[in-house]
Amino acid sequence: MSATPDMVTASILVIGDEILSGRTKDKNIGTIADYLTAAGIDLREVRIVPDEEDRIVEAVNALRERYTYLFTTGGIGPTHDDITADCVAKAFGVGIDIDERARAMLLERHKPEDLNEARLRMARIPFGADLIANPISKAPGFRIGNVIVMAGVPAIMQAMLDAVGPTLKGGAAMQSMTVEAKGIPEGNYAGDLGEIAKRHGEVSIGSYPMMTPEGFRNRIVVRSRDASALAAAQEEVEALVARLSA
Amino acid sequence: MSATPDMVTASILVIGDEILSGRTKDKNIGTIADYLTAAGIDLREVRIVPDEEDRIVEAVNALRERYTYLFTTGGIGPTHDDITADCVAKAFGVGIDIDERARAMLLERHKPEDLNEARLRMARIPFGADLIANPISKAPGFRIGNVIVMAGVPAIMQAMLDAVGPTLKGGAAMQSMTVEAKGIPEGNYAGDLGEIAKRHGEVSIGSYPMMTPEGFRNRIVVRSRDASALAAAQEEVEALVARLSA
Repeated sequence: MSATPDMVTASILVIGDEILSGRTKDKNIGTIADYLTAAGIDLREVRIVPDEEDRIVEAVNALRERYTYLFTTGGIGPTHDDITADCVAKAFGVGIDIDERARAMLLERHKPEDLNEARLRMARIPFGADLIANPISKAPGFRIGNVIVMAGVPAIMQAMLDAVGPTLKGGAAMQSMTVEAKGIPEGNYAGDLGEIAKRHGEVSIGSYPMMTPEGFRNRIVVRSRDASALAAAQEEVEALVARLSA
Repeated sequence: MSATPDMVTASILVIGDEILSGRTKDKNIGTIADYLTAAGIDLREVRIVPDEEDRIVEAVNALRERYTYLFTTGGIGPTHDDITADCVAKAFGVGIDIDERARAMLLERHKPEDLNEARLRMARIPFGADLIANPISKAPGFRIGNVIVMAGVPAIMQAMLDAVGPTLKGGAAMQSMTVEAKGIPEGNYAGDLGEIAKRHGEVSIGSYPMMTPEGFRNRIVVRSRDASALAAAQEEVEALVARLSA
């Protein structure tokens, strides 16, 4: 099953040395993936890059041109390594400066005398962007064109995703169903499953082995945006598993 | 801090619709990141792509040309959606067929009469590749050129990483130290921290906010391959935190 022109697609760009060093384990990719799947938006690619301008600009441009939406996480705090906003401005070829709406948001949390140069970095927003509210620490995310720029702290990212979600165009929601292959080894059904996949082009079929203390337990997942195509493929997969369990 | 010519660099390519749909949450990126950091290898980029030939081939070629090593995970099982080995062969422009060494490994687990066409897919290895042993389910990974192809199941991936690790050239191990910023808000030290980062070009300095029930707790992480440069920067960061805590 490959992308068709009417599909709404998305990509994620995770920005941060701390993810690449292993010091911080990313939790945002899975959260956004779940969110997009539920919204009928097809997540097609994820990249993780370091806090370096040329790498961020290159990835922003590659991904925003290729997919309906690009979601970025990380790099919008007050420290010198928080360069995402400047990189996004550069990718779009627009200016960036302190945004008075963003400054007002920061003033909900900080006293005017505490809004030093570092904190005001968090109010630097590319020209033409819409702000995304941050109910937790106030410093906003933003959206420019098809690029949605969010914080890296998972709770804040989640709040921003909830805020921006209703403004996204959704595709037909992907529906999925799972057939438990029970103890049947993957290699016993792989050939027949491939034949089923060939016969059902509207449907994506995956087989996912999981190790458990009792050995491998496999699951077959059938996914489609078309309910009747899904049901037809599901029926064949269930018949296959029933036959091999007999 | 950016890459220098004598650095050993790496990238990861995660292959699988199940990660992009959110159904499976990746655990391998963090494991490989930790492993590489300990080995002094600089992880510079991660990509996640779907089970589609053109996308996999494109990513393999982009990443293997750019970094010392490329590690892939996923897509080497027996089902129709396991196309990594074929894609890697295509990326390298080499043939692929059933490898007798790999068949022998599969025979350690399966009876000859159970080695059907589907299972034999797991013995398809690009010409010229070296095999990577899989002590758990026997079906091997492989290495061709600078590309290391591993399973997606975390326990098997880990075993393959342990097997291939000693054959990698390591860089000088990255050393890091963490300064607890305690309850000091990031915005209070961000300006001074940026100045310290500017003065210490050999060192990477990051500031990482974490939400806790008591509010934000920030950590400043200083990283370098040069112990004396690390110590010098660390001293300044500690002095900064001490000054702001006073």
